[in-house]
Amino acid sequence: MLTNNDIKYIRSLSQKKYRQKYNNFVIEGEKMILETIFFAPDRLVKLYCLPEFKNKYNKDLSLFDEKIEVISLRELKKISNLKTPNQGLALIEIEKENIEDIRKFNFVLYLDDIRDPGNMGTIIRTADWFNVDCIIVSKDSVDIYNPKVLQSSMGSIFRIPVFEYDFNQLDEILGDINIKYYGMLMNGESIYEAEYDFPLVVVIGNESRGISDKIISKLDKKITIPRFNQHTESLNASIATAIVVSEVMRRKKD
Amino acid sequence: MLTNNDIKYIRSLSQKKYRQKYNNFVIEGEKMILETIFFAPDRLVKLYCLPEFKNKYNKDLSLFDEKIEVISLRELKKISNLKTPNQGLALIEIEKENIEDIRKFNFVLYLDDIRDPGNMGTIIRTADWFNVDCIIVSKDSVDIYNPKVLQSSMGSIFRIPVFEYDFNQLDEILGDINIKYYGMLMNGESIYEAEYDFPLVVVIGNESRGISDKIISKLDKKITIPRFNQHTESLNASIATAIVVSEVMRRKKD
Repeated sequence: MLTNNDIKYIRSLSQKKYRQKYNNFVIEGEKMILETIFFAPDRLVKLYCLPEFKNKYNKDLSLFDEKIEVISLRELKKISNLKTPNQGLALIEIEKENIEDIRKFNFVLYLDDIRDPGNMGTIIRTADWFNVDCIIVSKDSVDIYNPKVLQSSMGSIFRIPVFEYDFNQLDEILGDINIKYYGMLMNGESIYEAEYDFPLVVVIGNESRGISDKIISKLDKKITIPRFNQHTESLNASIATAIVVSEVMRRKKD
Repeated sequence: MLTNNDIKYIRSLSQKKYRQKYNNFVIEGEKMILETIFFAPDRLVKLYCLPEFKNKYNKDLSLFDEKIEVISLRELKKISNLKTPNQGLALIEIEKENIEDIRKFNFVLYLDDIRDPGNMGTIIRTADWFNVDCIIVSKDSVDIYNPKVLQSSMGSIFRIPVFEYDFNQLDEILGDINIKYYGMLMNGESIYEAEYDFPLVVVIGNESRGISDKIISKLDKKITIPRFNQHTESLNASIATAIVVSEVMRRKKD
């Protein structure tokens, strides 16, 4: 049975400061729980689920017996962030990424203050599809363990490393490597014509103001998605990211 | 001053059946009102705006004097769909697209039951950027005049023709033209390697179940965005659309 302390603890994790303090985040629903079990079993801290979920996946769940607590729908509603709670909720350990790993990557996305949770989740999902080596998010970006981000990432968060660093920290870590920084801007070379040198970091700017000035001065190249209709103003940030990632991967393959 | 009948009429337009009955839809906010004035001035039926908006754009608005009613913020709140109403609200005429126009287009998107308003709006915005000739949406797709669709389309709805037809109607209209139907599926030829023959219709399927069987049997080619990570399941529908549109336009240009 859920204690009041359990409920209080789980609910506290809807805030970034408590996620960081306790090094845990929350995922919800059948699909996300299965993604955890298959792709990040070691990170499962606790699973609260309905009896029908336990029965349905009894075999897959047998390895995690001591971490599972079967609860009622009434209890699930007390800890869920969803309007319609779905099957269960799990606590997951936040993985401490190894900063040195960044140095061995070939194609990295740097997100400079992406603020919309839907955009962030969609970018993580897209980068996972294209097997981008890792994503680095600036400290002012939306938290990647925000429930709406996790929802739009569709489990991809378990398959692609995501680090949180400001650009100058990144640049310090990578300072002695001959890595290129390309930035997505309105006035650069066409993404279809640019040469891509690896290892490569592609920088995506904030939804309203684009890439910050302090980063622009560090770029090796400015690149642009050609606009075929001069009357349009911009593309959605997750759309622009997907188009450039697709183009880089197409060319990388050659 | 707004009458009760005005309020009732405007509010009724939040439902598709009344939009169709009266052939009007609602847009809101400074940006969307300006897009109307610049890109679709003939379609403006009525503008309700705050005095400060009228003053700020007095020159641009002078052509529409008899269509403008200055209202108070209290009145705007009565007719707005937004939590925080912004500057004003306008009634716009639904444009009856000319069915024959489809026959002269070179690159068309067909959306087979796209249900998410955010996806629909984002697809319209992206297609506008790439100057796709038109978008055709199936009758079971989310209504393109749904306020959330209009919000994510960022005014692009005024710059790209959008028709509503089921696929068999489209096929009847185009039956005697040598137009190709390509469908986005999981098991087709790579979008990077496929040849694109124009005139071309690219079919995008529903978010969960993909392209309907009745359309699959009519396709000239199945195309696929290569998956670089075998563990991922799918891409978001608006992301997949953007990637294929970018690729078609890159190749069309050559």
